[in-house]
Parts: sequence; C-alpha cells; structure tokens
Amino acid sequence: MKKIWNSKDLCALADHSEEELRVILDTATAFKGVGERNLKKVPALRGKTMVNLFVEPSTRTRISFELAAMRLSADVVNINASASSLEKGETLLDTARNLEALRVDLIVIRHKSAGSARFLADRLKASVINAGDGSHEHPTQGLLDAFTIREKLGTLEGVRVSIVGDILFSRVARSNIEILTKLGAKVTLVGPPTLVPKTFESLGVRVAHNIDEVIGESDVINLLRIQHERQKTEYFPGLGEYTARFGLTRKRAEQLKPECLIMHPGPMNRGVEIDSQVADGRSSVILDQVTNGLAVRMAVLYLCSGGAPFAPITAS
Amino acid sequence: MKKIWNSKDLCALADHSEEELRVILDTATAFKGVGERNLKKVPALRGKTMVNLFVEPSTRTRISFELAAMRLSADVVNINASASSLEKGETLLDTARNLEALRVDLIVIRHKSAGSARFLADRLKASVINAGDGSHEHPTQGLLDAFTIREKLGTLEGVRVSIVGDILFSRVARSNIEILTKLGAKVTLVGPPTLVPKTFESLGVRVAHNIDEVIGESDVINLLRIQHERQKTEYFPGLGEYTARFGLTRKRAEQLKPECLIMHPGPMNRGVEIDSQVADGRSSVILDQVTNGLAVRMAVLYLCSGGAPFAPITAS
Amino acid sequence: MKKIWNSKDLCALADHSEEELRVILDTATAFKGVGERNLKKVPALRGKTMVNLFVEPSTRTRISFELAAMRLSADVVNINASASSLEKGETLLDTARNLEALRVDLIVIRHKSAGSARFLADRLKASVINAGDGSHEHPTQGLLDAFTIREKLGTLEGVRVSIVGDILFSRVARSNIEILTKLGAKVTLVGPPTLVPKTFESLGVRVAHNIDEVIGESDVINLLRIQHERQKTEYFPGLGEYTARFGLTRKRAEQLKPECLIMHPGPMNRGVEIDSQVADGRSSVILDQVTNGLAVRMAVLYLCSGGAPFAPITAS
Repeated sequence: MKKIWNSKDLCALADHSEEELRVILDTATAFKGVGERNLKKVPALRGKTMVNLFVEPSTRTRISFELAAMRLSADVVNINASASSLEKGETLLDTARNLEALRVDLIVIRHKSAGSARFLADRLKASVINAGDGSHEHPTQGLLDAFTIREKLGTLEGVRVSIVGDILFSRVARSNIEILTKLGAKVTLVGPPTLVPKTFESLGVRVAHNIDEVIGESDVINLLRIQHERQKTEYFPGLGEYTARFGLTRKRAEQLKPECLIMHPGPMNRGVEIDSQVADGRSSVILDQVTNGLAVRMAVLYLCSGGAPFAPITAS
Repeated sequence: MKKIWNSKDLCALADHSEEELRVILDTATAFKGVGERNLKKVPALRGKTMVNLFVEPSTRTRISFELAAMRLSADVVNINASASSLEKGETLLDTARNLEALRVDLIVIRHKSAGSARFLADRLKASVINAGDGSHEHPTQGLLDAFTIREKLGTLEGVRVSIVGDILFSRVARSNIEILTKLGAKVTLVGPPTLVPKTFESLGVRVAHNIDEVIGESDVINLLRIQHERQKTEYFPGLGEYTARFGLTRKRAEQLKPECLIMHPGPMNRGVEIDSQVADGRSSVILDQVTNGLAVRMAVLYLCSGGAPFAPITAS
Repeated sequence: MKKIWNSKDLCALADHSEEELRVILDTATAFKGVGERNLKKVPALRGKTMVNLFVEPSTRTRISFELAAMRLSADVVNINASASSLEKGETLLDTARNLEALRVDLIVIRHKSAGSARFLADRLKASVINAGDGSHEHPTQGLLDAFTIREKLGTLEGVRVSIVGDILFSRVARSNIEILTKLGAKVTLVGPPTLVPKTFESLGVRVAHNIDEVIGESDVINLLRIQHERQKTEYFPGLGEYTARFGLTRKRAEQLKPECLIMHPGPMNRGVEIDSQVADGRSSVILDQVTNGLAVRMAVLYLCSGGAPFAPITAS
C-alpha cells in the first residue's frame, strides 16, 4: 500500500488533504479495538518518549494523550507550565530545543498562542502534536468528532452538522469546520452575531443566529462549551439568556430528528449549553467522543512516529 | 479453592465480611515478598490502567497506590484536583464517566465527601478503590493496620487495641474499628469527650477519656494524627494541653507493656501526639505500617481486578 | 576489571577521587549511545523504583533524571514539595524513612538546604543522588560540564576554563570547580568582588574581576545564570550593568579563541549573561550539555545501583 501519511507533525487539520485525514480515521478505527481488550497495550512505540507540554492546563486532553502513549508502550513525561522553566523567562523555543537535546520523540503541546505548535514543528526534529493553540486549532478534537459521526452514521458525505456556541474563539469549531467540510459534511454555525459573525461563511459553511431554524434539519448537533470562567460578559447578556436563546433545552431536543446525534466536547456545563437529561439521553454520543479521542490520538502518535497507515476499514 | 472475593470495588470495610477481609490480608502476605526482591515487579496487572484521582491532596497515599500499581505492572495516571476539570464546574460523576469512556480499569479516589467512592462504584464498570472519603472510611489504612498487628502478634483475636485522638472526624479510626472488631480484637477509643463521644460504644467498642486508664493493659496503641492545620481550636484547648492529656509521652510509654506495639498512621507531629524518641523506639511499628500499606494495596488492586485470592498463609 | 565505584550515593563531587569521577564519565560515554538509538531503552534497572523528591522546583533537572531512569527501565514517582507531607510539618528524615519503608531504590533530591542529600544518604539504605542542595553542590551538573569539555576537546588536562557570574551562591560553580581541578583543568572564576571573593583562591583556582582579562586565553567559557528572580539587588547594580561588565556580548565573543567552547547550565537569560546570537552560534555547546546531562545521570543511577562500571573508552 502506498504510504499516504508523510508528516512528522500534526499542527492543524488545515494543513492536510482529505486523503490524509481519512488515513488517520482509518488507523484510529484499527486502534479503537485495543482499548476494548483486556490487555490494552501494543508495542508500537516501545522505547519512544512523549512529552506532554501543557503550557495551558487541561486535564482531559493531557490524560487522553497520556493513555494513548501508554497503550502504544511509549514512556510519558508530563510538564505543566506553572512548574516549568518557562516561568523563569525561558522562551518556548529554548524549552523545546532542550526537549530535543534530551532526544524526546514526540512533543504534545497545548499553548495559549495560535501558531505555537507550527512554530516548534518547523524548528525541531521531534514530532509536534498540537493539543490546542489559542483560538486557532485543536486538530485531534476535530478528528475525534469526525470519527464519531462517521462511526455512527456510516459516512460524513452530505451529513448536516450544526455547531452551536462561541465559534469566534473556538479552536474546536475551527478544527471541526476544516475536517467536516473536507469530508463532505454540510456545516451550519449557530450563535449570536457577536460570537458567530457572517464572515465565517467564507469557510464554506452556513451561519445562523436562530437555533430553532436549524434544529429540525440537523443530523448532528454539537454544543460547544460556554467558557464562562473566561467570558468577560461582553458577548452575551448572561448564562440564563444564553440557555434561553441557544441552549439545547429539553423542549428543543424534542424538535430534533430522532436519529440526530448530540455531541459536546466537554467538560459540560449541565443546564447551560445543554440540558442535563438530554446530555445523558439516548441520542447523546458524548462519551463515545471521549473513547474515540483516545483511538484518534493513538493513530496520530503512531502515524507521526512513522508508523505505516492501516488499510481503510470503512468505505465512507 | 472457592473464590471468596467477588467485589470489583473497595469502598468501605463495613461492606465486607470477616472472611473477605481475611482474604485481602492473606493475599497481601503473599505480595509483601515482592517488595523485598531485587526485581520488584510481577506482571499481574500488565496492560491495565489505574487512575489516582486525588480531589483532596495526599502525597503518601498517592505514592503508595502508585507504587503498588507499578509493582503489579499496571500503568498509572495521576490526576489532582487543582488541575482537573472538576474546577471548571464538572461534576464528579462526569469526571468519572469520562475516565470510564477512556477504558480506565481502576480508579483510586480520595475525596472530601463521605460516600463519594460508593457513589462512583455503583455507576461505573471500572473498579473503584476508596483512598479516603471525608470522615467516613479509609479502608486500606484499616487493612494495613490490621495486617501489621496480625503480622507482629500472630493474631487479632482478643488483642487489646487502644486508638487515641480525634476519633470523631477520623476515617482512619472508623476503618480500624470495622476490621478490628470483625477480626476479634477488643478496641478502646481514647480522647476528650468532644472528640470521642460515648455514642461510639454502639459500634462494639469501649470509650475512655483518660489515657492513663488504658495504657497499662494495651497490646497495641495507635496514636492518630492531630490535624492541627484543620482544627478550629474548638475541640481541645491547645496542642500543649493535648500532649499533656493524651500524648504518648516518654513517661507514659514507660507504663506500656514491654511487648505493646506503637502505631501511627503518619505523618507524625513529633512531640504532639507522640514523643519523638518513642516514635523511633523498639516498640514502634510505624515504618512497618508503611511497608505493609504497599502490600495491602497491591492485594486490593489485584483482587478488585478479578485476581484469584491466595490461599491463607497465616492461621489467625 | 577492578570495581572502582563503590558508593551507593552521589552527594558531592568533593567526596570522590579523580579515578571515581573518570569512571562516571566513562560509563556515561557508553550510555550516551542509548539516546541515539531508535529504541532508547536498556533493561539495566528494570524493577527498580526511583523517586524524584524535588523540595525545590526544577523542571529541567527533574525531567533529565526522569528520562534517565526510564531509559534504564526503572519506574519513576515524582514528588514535589508543595504537594508533599513536608508541608504538614513532617521532617525531611521522616519523609525519607517513609520512602525507604516503601522499598524505593533511588531517591533523587533537590533541596534548599546544603547537606540535605548527605544527611539522607547516611541514614538510608536507598541510594541518594543530590540534584542540588542549597548553594553547596550540584554534582551531576559538574559531571555533565566536565563530560562535555572532555568530549569536545579530548581532555581536561591543562584546559583553561573561565566560569563567569554569581559564584558565591552557585552550587553549579562549586561542583565544576571540584571536578575540573581534579581532572587537571585550570579554572578561573570571573565576577564582581561581591560575588567572587578572593577567598575562592584557596580552592586552587584563579579569581578575576575583569572578564576582558581572561576572555582571550580561555579554552572554555561557562556563563552562569543570573538568578535575577532571587537577587535582592545587593550584589550588583542591575541587569544592564551586569551585562555591560560581565555578559558575553557579541563584541566580547569576537575576542574569544575560535575553538573556545561556550557553555551555560540553562535556563538562559538571553541578552543578560549571554548574547542571544552567541548562545546559538557555532561555538556554543549549550545543547550538548543537555544531551550529555542525560547520559551522565544514566551513569550515576546505574553505578549507584551497583552496576559494573564500563571500561574507559577515552584516554584522557
């Protein structure tokens, strides 16, 4: 089989072709089985070292990458910003060069600055995986969302996906738009004009400011987390108001098509962007997203380390 | 051999029969040898993943579980509260469901709320081990204390154990009472009436407010840590007063039977609940408790993962 | 071959003979190759447990020891001060005795008190490795600096090494002086009289207060980090003044012999003790120091665990 994946890094889904993205999804499908075994380890990356460099904290993503590396038999070192030399005024590049001098094989980086992963990837021999860079991209989140839809619906071609919430500052939204449009889905962004400006239409998506307009036609509805701990209360009047206008309340959930998938990248604010019972309901695939995230990250670590892609398993 | 241990969880010693508790102690006896070897690893839990979910910090207990898992060849992921999604307002149940979606096999939880471990255990397929839930239970501490007494004295039957200190708020005391009374020891609780109310007698133990009454008759004296960093100074007048009335001073230590074991769950306040020289003296088994804690935790992780119990080795 | 290394600990280079120090360097040379392989692991310390006890934070040194242990197949547990029982008022000795009761094999300690590593080493059966104790010693830093010079110049005999900066409070300087003078190098200490008093001459080194006096004759120039986050501004007027008088500016770098090695223990304050371009220039071996640090630490962990020294590979 021709080797389709040739990159040592994954910085942004925007950098990769439809074919490359499919290779990751297909490889993830093969790895998903490992998590269901009693012995959840394969020796693929034995003797390799991965560093989780989280300059911005995130327990969930850190753990998902840590488990992915462990299941591939790699060794993991965790660095979080507050303890790191970065505090002593060292630049990100110096930190990264040091990691390379230590012959680290993979660097997973979460950082508040857009472009930080690419900046490192261009300068280091080590593989660099973006685990979220500012409001730019969060490629493995986009991949796991696409993986989940493809797994549940059999395809992404023609699937109508509504993404609801704070799109403007969301790297999750940006990575979703990249992969979903490339793989043939029809994406609608939903939220107040302050958070979902019309300019997004240039990305090949539809913009809607009224959730009730799109709710009945969606095959997938993805509720983004309202970052109320960061919000400076300028973009919408308050949480209650947000829920009333854009939350997936029980009432709105009744308007969904019965087979519509309900997604959320987590952690959820139950009762804000999504009703608590709806989040736990039959249509919710929120925990599948978590499971699939691990499979997708195994695939990414494996492919960026030079592993041979697995043959496509689904036809989509 | 009949399989006596059938639980995927260990939430409270109160949930388990005398026979089940003996199975843990017997299995721990078998595992204790592993720590004395040059190669301190057995492959029992290879490919399994344990998460240390410490929503309340505790370096000692965390490390003991971490080493126990490593010696069983399991992979370990550490989560501590301050870094976790719990801070972002996610519920404990959502955090735990996420860990389950990641196919984590064992969750060791320390949490300030009584009942938190049981709450998770009832809802998850993963094994849940309680590493201390509020002032409810700390089952592995009770097990390691019982293990240490049994190892040193050959039996628990009829052994007189005095537990001294802040019983009211102590999960250590509660787990000790559970296992010691079930295995036949005679327990006396000692402390000021504010910290050791008479109502404890309903648990089948004796209550004493004067340490000098019990000191000469004890086979084991277990000094609990005074949590002076938490104390709101309401329960006793001050540390000096506490030492004078309930501390194991050198003078009191002379009143002990020569073969009486001196125990402390650590970390010690030397000079407060226990005299520093007494803590390091010949009768002290405080460091044996630490060593045995690791063996007991290996046994618990192993049994809750479905491992076959070891045949009883001691007759007690 | 006669076994030259017989110590379970490495607390200070001052404790060891020239011959012993050469054994570490020779063993490190053999281990350096492991970091260049695809499979970066050897089974030398399989089943052993190393604890990184960092009572003073240091991400770089912690990670270097962590990777060194992993490459030797040891298990690693990280403890940092702020989370540890030390905070609850437990003494360092009690913490260490607990680690020994847990049958930990190696304790790597960084601590603010001079002599803390030796204090533990004398009381524990476990190996104790000093990762920096106050302003006393940082032996693995001295070793890696000597290793780097020997690797690049073929020998230390007669090599002129200038160490520039805050010598008075620098454990890095102290460990460098120990090993470099023992292995035959000619050391000059450079800095303001407040930070480099004449009394240092009793260690068999030269003291200079004018960097321009020594710059043209040095074979190696080692710029120490100005700890401006700790500095109480008493020892020199300010950062700009320091750079003007003692910094390796581009202009000064032009006065260096072409083959002079430029070293820095990191993390660098670019533009303060060293010009940014000079730090990245052809003569800089700063990243080699990082790579060699890992090899040196592998050698130290291995030898202190009782591993057989490797035969000398270089003749120096």
